[in-house]
Amino acid sequence: MIFVMKQNVEKSKVDAFRKIFEDKGFKTLYSFGTDYQVVGLVGNTSILDVDQITETNVIVEYGKRITEPFKMVNRKFQPENTYVKVGPTTFGEGLFQVIAGPCSVENENQIMEIARAVKLSGATLLRGGAFKPRSSPYAFQGLHAEGIQLLLQAKKETGLPIVSELTSLSQFDLFEDVDVIQVGARNMQNFDMLRELGLCKKAILLKRGLASTIEEFLMSAEYIMTGGNSNIILCERGIRTIETMTRNTLDISAVPLLKKLSHLPVIIDPSHAGGMRSLVAPLTKAAIAIGADGILIETHNNPAEALSDGAQSLDLSDFSELMVEIERRVAFENKKLDKS
Amino acid sequence: MIFVMKQNVEKSKVDAFRKIFEDKGFKTLYSFGTDYQVVGLVGNTSILDVDQITETNVIVEYGKRITEPFKMVNRKFQPENTYVKVGPTTFGEGLFQVIAGPCSVENENQIMEIARAVKLSGATLLRGGAFKPRSSPYAFQGLHAEGIQLLLQAKKETGLPIVSELTSLSQFDLFEDVDVIQVGARNMQNFDMLRELGLCKKAILLKRGLASTIEEFLMSAEYIMTGGNSNIILCERGIRTIETMTRNTLDISAVPLLKKLSHLPVIIDPSHAGGMRSLVAPLTKAAIAIGADGILIETHNNPAEALSDGAQSLDLSDFSELMVEIERRVAFENKKLDKS
Amino acid sequence: MIFVMKQNVEKSKVDAFRKIFEDKGFKTLYSFGTDYQVVGLVGNTSILDVDQITETNVIVEYGKRITEPFKMVNRKFQPENTYVKVGPTTFGEGLFQVIAGPCSVENENQIMEIARAVKLSGATLLRGGAFKPRSSPYAFQGLHAEGIQLLLQAKKETGLPIVSELTSLSQFDLFEDVDVIQVGARNMQNFDMLRELGLCKKAILLKRGLASTIEEFLMSAEYIMTGGNSNIILCERGIRTIETMTRNTLDISAVPLLKKLSHLPVIIDPSHAGGMRSLVAPLTKAAIAIGADGILIETHNNPAEALSDGAQSLDLSDFSELMVEIERRVAFENKKLDKS
Amino acid sequence: MIFVMKQNVEKSKVDAFRKIFEDKGFKTLYSFGTDYQVVGLVGNTSILDVDQITETNVIVEYGKRITEPFKMVNRKFQPENTYVKVGPTTFGEGLFQVIAGPCSVENENQIMEIARAVKLSGATLLRGGAFKPRSSPYAFQGLHAEGIQLLLQAKKETGLPIVSELTSLSQFDLFEDVDVIQVGARNMQNFDMLRELGLCKKAILLKRGLASTIEEFLMSAEYIMTGGNSNIILCERGIRTIETMTRNTLDISAVPLLKKLSHLPVIIDPSHAGGMRSLVAPLTKAAIAIGADGILIETHNNPAEALSDGAQSLDLSDFSELMVEIERRVAFENKKLDKS
Repeated sequence: MIFVMKQNVEKSKVDAFRKIFEDKGFKTLYSFGTDYQVVGLVGNTSILDVDQITETNVIVEYGKRITEPFKMVNRKFQPENTYVKVGPTTFGEGLFQVIAGPCSVENENQIMEIARAVKLSGATLLRGGAFKPRSSPYAFQGLHAEGIQLLLQAKKETGLPIVSELTSLSQFDLFEDVDVIQVGARNMQNFDMLRELGLCKKAILLKRGLASTIEEFLMSAEYIMTGGNSNIILCERGIRTIETMTRNTLDISAVPLLKKLSHLPVIIDPSHAGGMRSLVAPLTKAAIAIGADGILIETHNNPAEALSDGAQSLDLSDFSELMVEIERRVAFENKKLDKS
Repeated sequence: MIFVMKQNVEKSKVDAFRKIFEDKGFKTLYSFGTDYQVVGLVGNTSILDVDQITETNVIVEYGKRITEPFKMVNRKFQPENTYVKVGPTTFGEGLFQVIAGPCSVENENQIMEIARAVKLSGATLLRGGAFKPRSSPYAFQGLHAEGIQLLLQAKKETGLPIVSELTSLSQFDLFEDVDVIQVGARNMQNFDMLRELGLCKKAILLKRGLASTIEEFLMSAEYIMTGGNSNIILCERGIRTIETMTRNTLDISAVPLLKKLSHLPVIIDPSHAGGMRSLVAPLTKAAIAIGADGILIETHNNPAEALSDGAQSLDLSDFSELMVEIERRVAFENKKLDKS
Repeated sequence: MIFVMKQNVEKSKVDAFRKIFEDKGFKTLYSFGTDYQVVGLVGNTSILDVDQITETNVIVEYGKRITEPFKMVNRKFQPENTYVKVGPTTFGEGLFQVIAGPCSVENENQIMEIARAVKLSGATLLRGGAFKPRSSPYAFQGLHAEGIQLLLQAKKETGLPIVSELTSLSQFDLFEDVDVIQVGARNMQNFDMLRELGLCKKAILLKRGLASTIEEFLMSAEYIMTGGNSNIILCERGIRTIETMTRNTLDISAVPLLKKLSHLPVIIDPSHAGGMRSLVAPLTKAAIAIGADGILIETHNNPAEALSDGAQSLDLSDFSELMVEIERRVAFENKKLDKS
Repeated sequence: MIFVMKQNVEKSKVDAFRKIFEDKGFKTLYSFGTDYQVVGLVGNTSILDVDQITETNVIVEYGKRITEPFKMVNRKFQPENTYVKVGPTTFGEGLFQVIAGPCSVENENQIMEIARAVKLSGATLLRGGAFKPRSSPYAFQGLHAEGIQLLLQAKKETGLPIVSELTSLSQFDLFEDVDVIQVGARNMQNFDMLRELGLCKKAILLKRGLASTIEEFLMSAEYIMTGGNSNIILCERGIRTIETMTRNTLDISAVPLLKKLSHLPVIIDPSHAGGMRSLVAPLTKAAIAIGADGILIETHNNPAEALSDGAQSLDLSDFSELMVEIERRVAFENKKLDKS
């Protein structure tokens, strides 16, 4: 952490400033020139608030954190890629996962038909929402416990590991046999939830918040990992921007950046990113080419009648076609589609 | 809800489209011209997803929800202003509230000194965080139950009603004697939390999310009000934009818009909006002039040593000076500073 | 400008890095600790690109410009407020200007009626567009030279100085008797235009770009001032954000920030910021309270039939009412409405 | 264009509203139900301002333009793909172009060395800036006429068509032998410039503005095409968002959307989008996979010493390696790299 003093500040005041931090156990560096003086802090600066120090010490012109605030998820801390094992499949570099299924589990027929079809087409995991975070209290909120039961039934029949979103810690016990717990974009900074999920060993699919920076995204993963759980899959799903034609703007640059900064696997959700069916296939192709470790695709047996997010769902036949394309492209990238 | 058909769609297909909705109990309108055909739906369209219908019916070119999706918080539903009574004070049109206090309760001396000072200066409520949502797991997370106890002690001595943030429903019982429960920006779309808070009668201070639209903000208030609790205070606290000099960009236009669209009181948080001390006074002046029903100001006895958000906290002397200015301006607006 | 080296970089490499800049005439500072080494550059760093140096020198972890990149418009360079004299009126601290008039000059009757009415109501300058930047080639583009002539006629009759937008340098000669040349938001980074306008002595009303930061805004003013023209009025008119209910989001914090960072006068355009009539009066009140030096209000004798921007124009009667409010509030702020 | 009336508006007022437009030559549609009345306008609605009509007619609740405001660039207007011929090469569906070269032409040695190298590696066009729009007046602004001469020399020797940015119409004559005129992001809404460029027949590479929507981007292309010039190449180069780690956020979804909405070729600029060298290769792979018709890559013989944009420039060896990857991927997509 570095602080530049205002011009012409007396040396004695700078010394007093350094002493504040030395008394707290930090080492301080000092350098000066004709025009400015710089103080650097060495030690566990993650507990300091750089803006606060800058704003509340009148002699400071400018302060800046130099080191990344995330530690355990940092590739500097762990250079080797993390592999997240989920039932018979694994998320991580060199492998590719296709998670498919409906936004919401609606009834037995729906989820079973979809599960069988996506399994047949080559999907490697099944997704389905039982607890749905909806911006309107009047919209369908999911089947709750019954939805989880139906997912488990589909898992039993198809052998596909299942992914489902947890919206409140009170639901945790219901997720005992769910393979991957999804933390949705709106809960990315629900720190109480993250902390609790850090205490279990389940795979966590963490979605980036609608207006979260990559740094904040990694800090949320850090919450989980500091609890002891490193089974984290990062998911870029688009951020909110000035563009209004698409629901969100897929920040595809996040994939190479996250993989450079962190050792965790990174997947893309092309359905929510674009918010429209016609963008799912193009964004999937881009995701594979740029090095994502998987994708999360909304698939429905009858999108026109879906109780949620039908606008962006592929029907089963479109999904099947897309899977052929996915297999061809994953092979081109020398990756393995990790079918169980 | 209105749908425009694609050009040259056969009338029979439009009729089939209309029948889908008539079968669900909606009335449909139909109009046509040389170039286009329009279908309107009348009924409880809040349960329909306009994008989904548009994307999944190939004959539809364009669909649009006409009516606002929020109902109970809508001024059309309730033309009279809502007044939220909090202990001896009230939030609402014609009145003005000043909520002051530290970001975090840190220890007894700190909160008692601040509480006495802001009371003396003229603040009408005391704020203080016991559970802090921090983007870093390494930052100070609050004193938890002990923090609430200290706030209650300060309330007892000063008579100021207290405001504190709830970050998880598991904390709810601890808030029994807290006068106003704050839902932070990061929990604005924690729908499970909103639903539960709708079942109690406590005053809820709902902060706008970092990247939430005004419509989404009102939909979150709708969640609370549909549960039966209309004691809701809306708080604009800045949104994230392309500007990097300030932490957030205060969307001051939100005040007149929220007051036009809804009957709920609206306050402003000038501390978080700007993220710097020097902006608190100017933004406070603007807030009063534009018609806000109150402000929420971070105040600290020693900002340089604050355990959180010191950069934007006023010290007690600055706050005292600002209160003089606030009183003068509130009087100019013919409003009443509602001191207990 | 400061550079932090990567961990464990050899001292000899850091020396070579310093030598690059010393050979270019910069002084370098060096400080080191157990964990990191820092190099600072002293001299005219405004010609250096900090990102480029960081990205292209593999030993550098992080680089940061410390000093603000703008110089002449900086309050550190000129602590005294700039006053911009425009005919009989002046823009600057302690004064308040109300610029009123239509988005576009449409015909003689329209502009003369509006000019007389706003003069009578108390406006201090008249605005009117002759060259209109419109996002659609099919929209009305202005009366061009004839529009300027009509404005000059209105100026002659009412005595109000006039403000009009220049969209291309080829129009410059037509603006000889125009008192204030407006540079629109879309031309804020038309650097060729800024450079040319720096060579004249006319007052320039520079609007902030739709997605420009405050720093970029000041850099554009710097272009004008480095040419020798310091008659610059900064105008905040809203930035594009995630909010869709308003056309733009007025960044009201920009007023105190610009006035702190720079010595130039700052005004607000409440018409474009909100894009709707109902927001003009509330935003005007906020603008006065926060310390703006003036406002720019679209006013029309018949908004419903205006050829451009009618949605945000006040009619003459609303404007007259608002002027009463403005006078009352400007007096409350101890400012002088500078009527000629 | 559709207008929904407010509730309970008298039929006679709606008729008067319709008459306004019928008098202007529009046909009107009318439909009504128990709750609402809708008026539709048929005719050349591109000259109308929907927001203005909505805001200034008190009986109107809501108005919406139904048809896209762009016509000539619309795929509905011209279903066949446009091919833009540039010297011996062509931009358009099925082909792929690689435009490489430095941000700025700096001197003869620099541009000749780069031109020879990128030609050898397989680039199909050479880019180089002679007039540079820089946010700081203190930064290098380009070699101007001399820069163009050096580019022409490089073109002569290598046979590569050249691309260079025009920042002011006064430079137009100098561009006589430049093959593709680039309109930069900051000039995307310099409508005077667009109109003039519509009058020539040169190929125009139009970059998307930093905060422009896809609709605005197409409207700017419409300005050029209405003048008579359909030799337009659209270039997505990233938009400004809340993410601060990258200079801009590449909106990769823009590629399939632009190709669906319009018949014009679309390329991507991975250098400006990310603003860092390490993102160029990954974004290039994504661009090819998603169906872009080409890329624009900053390449420099010595990025560390580049006078502009060195941070994002590839050196010649990295570019050569990337070309191998590009050729392999373009072939995989069954496209032809159109080497002359």
